[in-house]
Amino acid sequence: VIVEVIAVGTELLLGQIVNSNAADIGRRLAELGHSHYRQTVVGDNLERCAAAIAEAIERADAVIITGGLGPTQDDLTREAICAATGRAMVYSESYATHLADWWAARGREMPESNLRQAEFPEGAEMIPNAKGTAPGLRLLHGGATLFALPGVPAELQPMLDDFVIPELGGSGTVHSRLLRTWGESESKVADLLGDIYDDSANPTLAFLASGGEIKLRLTAAAESAAAARDLIAPVEEEIRRRLGSLVFGADSETVEQLLFDMLAERGWTIGTAESATGGRIAAALTAVPGASAVFRGSVVAYAADIKSSLLAVPAELIAEEAIVSVDTAIAMAEGAASALGVDVAIAVTGSAGPEPLGQPRGTMAIAVRTPHGTSSRTMRMPGDRERVLTYTTTAALHLARLAIAGDAAL
Amino acid sequence: VIVEVIAVGTELLLGQIVNSNAADIGRRLAELGHSHYRQTVVGDNLERCAAAIAEAIERADAVIITGGLGPTQDDLTREAICAATGRAMVYSESYATHLADWWAARGREMPESNLRQAEFPEGAEMIPNAKGTAPGLRLLHGGATLFALPGVPAELQPMLDDFVIPELGGSGTVHSRLLRTWGESESKVADLLGDIYDDSANPTLAFLASGGEIKLRLTAAAESAAAARDLIAPVEEEIRRRLGSLVFGADSETVEQLLFDMLAERGWTIGTAESATGGRIAAALTAVPGASAVFRGSVVAYAADIKSSLLAVPAELIAEEAIVSVDTAIAMAEGAASALGVDVAIAVTGSAGPEPLGQPRGTMAIAVRTPHGTSSRTMRMPGDRERVLTYTTTAALHLARLAIAGDAAL
Repeated sequence: VIVEVIAVGTELLLGQIVNSNAADIGRRLAELGHSHYRQTVVGDNLERCAAAIAEAIERADAVIITGGLGPTQDDLTREAICAATGRAMVYSESYATHLADWWAARGREMPESNLRQAEFPEGAEMIPNAKGTAPGLRLLHGGATLFALPGVPAELQPMLDDFVIPELGGSGTVHSRLLRTWGESESKVADLLGDIYDDSANPTLAFLASGGEIKLRLTAAAESAAAARDLIAPVEEEIRRRLGSLVFGADSETVEQLLFDMLAERGWTIGTAESATGGRIAAALTAVPGASAVFRGSVVAYAADIKSSLLAVPAELIAEEAIVSVDTAIAMAEGAASALGVDVAIAVTGSAGPEPLGQPRGTMAIAVRTPHGTSSRTMRMPGDRERVLTYTTTAALHLARLAIAGDAAL
Repeated sequence: VIVEVIAVGTELLLGQIVNSNAADIGRRLAELGHSHYRQTVVGDNLERCAAAIAEAIERADAVIITGGLGPTQDDLTREAICAATGRAMVYSESYATHLADWWAARGREMPESNLRQAEFPEGAEMIPNAKGTAPGLRLLHGGATLFALPGVPAELQPMLDDFVIPELGGSGTVHSRLLRTWGESESKVADLLGDIYDDSANPTLAFLASGGEIKLRLTAAAESAAAARDLIAPVEEEIRRRLGSLVFGADSETVEQLLFDMLAERGWTIGTAESATGGRIAAALTAVPGASAVFRGSVVAYAADIKSSLLAVPAELIAEEAIVSVDTAIAMAEGAASALGVDVAIAVTGSAGPEPLGQPRGTMAIAVRTPHGTSSRTMRMPGDRERVLTYTTTAALHLARLAIAGDAAL
């Protein structure tokens, strides 16, 4: 299927945001083997948006439009589709009711302008949006299928996966397998798998770096899901043989979910003692639904004296020259285990910058206390403050996973 | 000047890289007051690349093409320009010599394939590349000027700044002003400003929603930055008059930064006591460089008994029926002020789902303790767990801002 992507939004043309939606959609289309020859960006302008849509319909079998579906007057995608296809705008009573219910369920009155979202180009079907009020739409016109999706990535992605991708289909099926690794750089992982990458055709192999983890995606096209899985299996086996314990999970197995499963299996609870990370590790753990079964709490001891008062860290370990050290991290982990009444405690002390705190910027001391004992590691994280904090949070969760498993490698 | 940008590269369509060049060029064009109505991405395909160039020449005064100037067979921009403009390819003896010198100066033999880079569409002038071997080119065709630049950002940027931008000229400038609001939905804010939006031409008005805040962007084009600011000022004044205290800041003034400034001014410190938000408020505060000047720490009391042991919340307030209540939030805020030794404490208890905790999902009790006293509010947040937690974090920071200011509206 030949697919074009049109992104609508003046903020893209002004360079205020980068068009990451187009890259995300392009990646998914490539994995599925669709032909994707052109992407266009236009601003919030009716005439130019309609022209881009009309041109794309001529060239492609399917056109995915992102953005411009919100409730405000500068959201023009619905009108542009009408103009490009010569259709009238119609009002959907049923979706107006749906919108009113959405607001009522939240105990709020629906602003009048939201009713714009109940208008559709004639003949369009609604694509439900589980994450927001802007519905998507699907319209057959001439030989092409038009899809319009909201520009907010968190709303767009599930609509793309659950509705657009299956509809683009193809006669066979495409199956993807995600292998998750932690502990080596993307270039090192790519080196280890260089010949597999060069030879990869079906399944294809793609590398994705995110937050300190490297993910590998194997995508196979075949007559059936079972046949696609059979194509993936031997390549996955060879990758796992080469990467060994770098591979920690597959598909939706996140490190947080793995940690929770390991803790629940052992009947253990977890908590954190955080300085530099300022609550991010606790926030990552509590992002998982059902966290309360194993997560009890956290002490964020940003000020040195709170490390003493709430975590019982000895005075000599909170002095400037000792505060970023594994000894202090170990004392914080042990103090947290006691203060929070947990079996496993993760502790971090470090310098995320700009202040160096007696150690080079990016230096992080991480300790994990488990009923097996307490282990620790000092790491040096690259990049700016945000990246240092993200990578440290990921590293701390992985070190906890290894410590709970009793892995000698920690 | 009307400018279009065409990015050439299959890796962009495959989503292997994000089109950051287009955003960078867009930002520069906006600053200079040029009209930039469309961006196109095409792959390394002669026919489709030539078609995109030919179409852009029809619409624009200037076309900036990025990528496809390298030495390999899939670098087709030179050929595509020839095809789009009906020109012959000519060989430049002088640039071939220049290339040979470039390699010789590095003590290396020039690969044969590099001589492709000495070929130009007839009539084109070379744009020197100080950072690599691929020269850029400039070609007048019909009424339009075509610029072709390499796709590597480090090579592209100096060529853009030193050659393309001065050539585009433009005496005017564009100035943007961002107004930040919190407290009403995007559609409600749009309703309040409907006529301003409808009438907006210079400055234009745009709405942007993010994490529970609504931002308004006013953008004006004028002869000078001062003149653009003069166009924006009366519209901003009218918007502020209508929205009143909904507007909390402008441009780069985030709520975290405002909070820190207000705290520093008063010589106060801050900490948090978090249940449902699990450390997110602390993480947001510590994302700001220099947080340690006012932020001391946090107690994440996810388990009920930690609310008692570390925050001294009375036993009756941690019972299932009371745990999501303003009374419990107030007790947590007061407990945190004492345990952390802070002047201002933000406390949150609520149900982010899936478990309801005796209250409808999304119910959040938020309290803020300041030296003025302790205030509280119950809010009902829409959306899934992630959105509930994001919106709650934003709301808690804003309620703290209002409480510190001694705003009676809280």
